[in-house]
Amino acid sequence: MKPAQNLASSIQTSASDIADRAFAEINKKTKPRGSLGTLENLAVQIAQITGTLSPVLSKKRICVFAASHGVVAEKVSAYPPEVTAQMLQNFLVGGAAINVLARHFGIDLHVIDVGVDPVSEKLCTTSNFYPRRVSAGTKNFVTDSAMTSEECTQAMRAGAEQVQIAAAGHIDLLGIGEMGIGNTTSASALVAALLDLPPKEVVGLGTGIDSETLNRKIDVVTRALAKHGPGVLQPAAQYWLQAVGGFEIAAMTGFILEAGKTRMAVAVDGFIATAAAAAAFQIDPSCRRVCFFSHQSAEAAHARVLAALEVAPILNLGMRLGEGTGAALAMPILEAAAKILAEMATFDSARVSDQIRDWV
Amino acid sequence: MKPAQNLASSIQTSASDIADRAFAEINKKTKPRGSLGTLENLAVQIAQITGTLSPVLSKKRICVFAASHGVVAEKVSAYPPEVTAQMLQNFLVGGAAINVLARHFGIDLHVIDVGVDPVSEKLCTTSNFYPRRVSAGTKNFVTDSAMTSEECTQAMRAGAEQVQIAAAGHIDLLGIGEMGIGNTTSASALVAALLDLPPKEVVGLGTGIDSETLNRKIDVVTRALAKHGPGVLQPAAQYWLQAVGGFEIAAMTGFILEAGKTRMAVAVDGFIATAAAAAAFQIDPSCRRVCFFSHQSAEAAHARVLAALEVAPILNLGMRLGEGTGAALAMPILEAAAKILAEMATFDSARVSDQIRDWV
Repeated sequence: MKPAQNLASSIQTSASDIADRAFAEINKKTKPRGSLGTLENLAVQIAQITGTLSPVLSKKRICVFAASHGVVAEKVSAYPPEVTAQMLQNFLVGGAAINVLARHFGIDLHVIDVGVDPVSEKLCTTSNFYPRRVSAGTKNFVTDSAMTSEECTQAMRAGAEQVQIAAAGHIDLLGIGEMGIGNTTSASALVAALLDLPPKEVVGLGTGIDSETLNRKIDVVTRALAKHGPGVLQPAAQYWLQAVGGFEIAAMTGFILEAGKTRMAVAVDGFIATAAAAAAFQIDPSCRRVCFFSHQSAEAAHARVLAALEVAPILNLGMRLGEGTGAALAMPILEAAAKILAEMATFDSARVSDQIRDWV
Repeated sequence: MKPAQNLASSIQTSASDIADRAFAEINKKTKPRGSLGTLENLAVQIAQITGTLSPVLSKKRICVFAASHGVVAEKVSAYPPEVTAQMLQNFLVGGAAINVLARHFGIDLHVIDVGVDPVSEKLCTTSNFYPRRVSAGTKNFVTDSAMTSEECTQAMRAGAEQVQIAAAGHIDLLGIGEMGIGNTTSASALVAALLDLPPKEVVGLGTGIDSETLNRKIDVVTRALAKHGPGVLQPAAQYWLQAVGGFEIAAMTGFILEAGKTRMAVAVDGFIATAAAAAAFQIDPSCRRVCFFSHQSAEAAHARVLAALEVAPILNLGMRLGEGTGAALAMPILEAAAKILAEMATFDSARVSDQIRDWV
């Protein structure tokens, strides 16, 4: 164990060392100290992830994972489950919000089907489509485990694969998003279990449900925790992912774990993607360092979960769509932060007089 | 007066009509209603300004106005006044934060000197530089009027000119920012007078002053209000702009007024630019419709002033640099909102089944 410990300790020192150097470099820039606020913190984290004081985050990609959810049998969504398959098609023909935003910001898009029901025979597939179907959606987690252990692993691998593809393609910055009618219920159950939060604090309005449906959704989460809670196996995070998660959530957990290992920066989208991050953080806390939380969703539980994870969102635009739309808006800001560190003049390079430097 | 009134009333109806149509169009998009939050509100306002449901905001420009302030004699800033001239030079050679952000987001930059002291003999000028010097900075407004009525008008014209240049160059979206050591004190005095707010609520830490300087700054604003307050002439906004404003603030006020007349969308930067907007709104309330408030500054008074103006900022990134840096970050989001309206598929165009449309 000695060599591994030494290596880990040396990586730790190196990451903290580069953070100090990035912070010192930012303080030499031609601006009052701290005056770029969040951008400065983002730049330091980017330096830590990339290991350089001249980070480049120009090649950007969002991976959208889609899957169907057995828990829709409990009537927890405002939309019928067929919308998942129809939106999958919409992503591939370029008409969804995430397509518009990704095109606008120069972000390319991968769409991964990890278990959408039904498979459309007329599905118009494109080169950015990855069929990685685990099965035709999860089981209803009120009565069954959402998935088997093998299915969970398979979904997580579909996520990890995308990080490997991105690394091979020299992508600098990744984003993750999702689509899956019913998946706020799954995410709520997951974060309630992992973060020990009461169901009514983590259940929200999702796509826009009425108060009767909201109460049913709280009840569904409560019953799921009661069913799967006793005798939890270790590691708990993966157990709960399997018990109440979704294939797209498990895929995003696998994605974040792999990104942590390969040191790829990831913009995490909204509530569902954050639930995936919560599971990843419990499985391997070291993956925290590569994650940026792009926005605070209008889904009320999201703020609660972000606080529990002790992370701060970059944007707060009252969005609650998913698909990676929040990640798309935050990624150019992350790239901007990298450029502040890499490109902005220092007081030295701008030849600002010594007298003025003394004032800073 | 009848024809003018009818015209005004017809413009009003048309603006409200297009807002209704934009709102209806957004509700047909393939997403749950309201799920894009702030982006949807921005898109409706953009439709109103541009008069179209297919708005394009691709050509973007930020105008940075720079000027020196006589009130620095009261030692209200952490930086010496020479920094204004040095930063002007930095804008022109491309090393400042606003240069990095503008390049990153594909925004072009105009730099306008409305009265920076000293004029550097070695100033490296470029084609995007507009020397429109009113004088070598304002007078100390604790003892004098900051500027004469003629100087105020001249500064406002330098702002309006930039809108005319942008309109002639078919720019779609404008941003405004500023540089001027001492200008948070000027902006604080201006908003205290215009919005009837107590000095201590509108005075903040600026570039990063200590508590002694903060108290001095509050005292300076209090004395300025006492000196210039009695017997205020009408219109009050322009009187106060002249009494305690800065040339760059007056220029931005002129800019916003002209943008209102020509219906050009403007991303207003931080605290100083918002003070200019407060003056413009009092001179001609109709210019409100073209303004977007890009971010909430870390300058504590900014939140107070935004609330008094009843406007909501797009971003909150803890920034307090000025230069138009907040505007630069918000402008691509405004363009994204325009594209959501113009480019995203509707439930009809995406051929989502009637059954599903009934659910929406």
